Amino acid sequence: MRVSAQVAAELIATAAELADAAREATLLHFRRADLTADTKETERFDPVTVADRLSEERMRAILKRRRPQDGILGEEFGAEAGTSGLTWVLDPIDGTRGYLSGTPTWGVLISVRDAVGPIYGIIDQPYIRERFEGGLGRAEVNGPSGRAGLRCRGARPLSEAILFSTFPEVGTAEEGAAFRRVVPQVRLTRYGTDCYGYALIAAGMVDLVIEAGLQAYDVQAPIAVIEAAGGIVTDWEGRPCHDGGRVLAAANAEVHAAALALLRG
Amino acid sequence: MRVSAQVAAELIATAAELADAAREATLLHFRRADLTADTKETERFDPVTVADRLSEERMRAILKRRRPQDGILGEEFGAEAGTSGLTWVLDPIDGTRGYLSGTPTWGVLISVRDAVGPIYGIIDQPYIRERFEGGLGRAEVNGPSGRAGLRCRGARPLSEAILFSTFPEVGTAEEGAAFRRVVPQVRLTRYGTDCYGYALIAAGMVDLVIEAGLQAYDVQAPIAVIEAAGGIVTDWEGRPCHDGGRVLAAANAEVHAAALALLRG
Repeated sequence: MRVSAQVAAELIATAAELADAAREATLLHFRRADLTADTKETERFDPVTVADRLSEERMRAILKRRRPQDGILGEEFGAEAGTSGLTWVLDPIDGTRGYLSGTPTWGVLISVRDAVGPIYGIIDQPYIRERFEGGLGRAEVNGPSGRAGLRCRGARPLSEAILFSTFPEVGTAEEGAAFRRVVPQVRLTRYGTDCYGYALIAAGMVDLVIEAGLQAYDVQAPIAVIEAAGGIVTDWEGRPCHDGGRVLAAANAEVHAAALALLRG
Repeated sequence: MRVSAQVAAELIATAAELADAAREATLLHFRRADLTADTKETERFDPVTVADRLSEERMRAILKRRRPQDGILGEEFGAEAGTSGLTWVLDPIDGTRGYLSGTPTWGVLISVRDAVGPIYGIIDQPYIRERFEGGLGRAEVNGPSGRAGLRCRGARPLSEAILFSTFPEVGTAEEGAAFRRVVPQVRLTRYGTDCYGYALIAAGMVDLVIEAGLQAYDVQAPIAVIEAAGGIVTDWEGRPCHDGGRVLAAANAEVHAAALALLRG
């Protein structure tokens, strides 16, 4: 879907207002002793915090006011249909376990998609006050060292590549086995970065992020930001992955192809 | 060694000047395309960057001017004896692999020790502009959300504890096996934080950091900061670990004892 310059400017301004609101909401409770995870202890660990809900509620209120014609898909409060052909995809806190632990690598993910996929996205790290955005003609980071353009790294052999993933287990046993075919072939593998790993691909620092079991709201903003910076994001078969699942994000076509071949086995 | 209030103030002011200089030096090259690791590719991956050396050189120059009577032990340029009974222990970039990858969890470690062990330490994260300090009557963080006191979390069952380590492998096969006796007993294990995990213990967010193969300069600043915030840092036998090796950092005596029992097997 082609959007006019006027609509693009309105989408970008709306996304910035969403990110500002989510930043404030998430920081209300970050690294505070009164933070409690609303978790059913008897079930699998899945923290859902007060901040997570507050962040999404505030973003939805802004969208109702500014973009009532658009649909919304959010992690906490599900899907609402729109009439414009555009849908906002929101993850109010990506990396709730990182958030609960106080790390600075969780983030707020905001994107807007059409029928094909995401056309614009933001990865915001509220504590650092750092925002990565991509799409609708933009590709930049604005953070503690100021504003800079985003551009993925150039091609290099897999043996020189840096690979990130959030958990060493990655996903199912089968998915973990595929991931571990890539690990010994790269220069360096690091864990624990949540959405921040995708931002680092766009910033030209990291070559690959490989994850599994993702949801649409986990991946659409990273796709928009990385593609705007010249990178590629697909599933482990090389197909679009904006609805989630197994994700292979790469800085360039060469390193993407090399990792894809190993994941396919 | 008891230091006077005047000496304490001078040590704290000197450490702040060191941290400011290291912050500036490390940020000169952080997330820049011209960054190259001075690594012998044929050997084990051990990046030593221009920034690492520049950071330590600048700190040593400040110490020569302000504290010529003190000893220095630094990662890059070794040990120099002093006459005061105090030694500065410096790691100009702790987490060079994180630095090379663009993460915000590497840090500058600065501490000053007497014959017994560290009496004051700083964990500085230059990119976030965040500084954790502890010892000589201080325990505080100063970062993007302002200034706050540091206090470790209270006791809770191991099944509620959060454990951090930089690499899932941890150390040797034997050390890794000991570590993996702890992992299934805790609520959450996260990787990839370098020295930032220790800062998060002091900030009251994380219960345990377990690592192996550390050097004196990796651990002395974390010891000072965590102890000032009420926590405990020992080796895997419960003995002092300021010369490095296997490290068990804990938010309180109870969680320390529980983890120690599992590490001992």
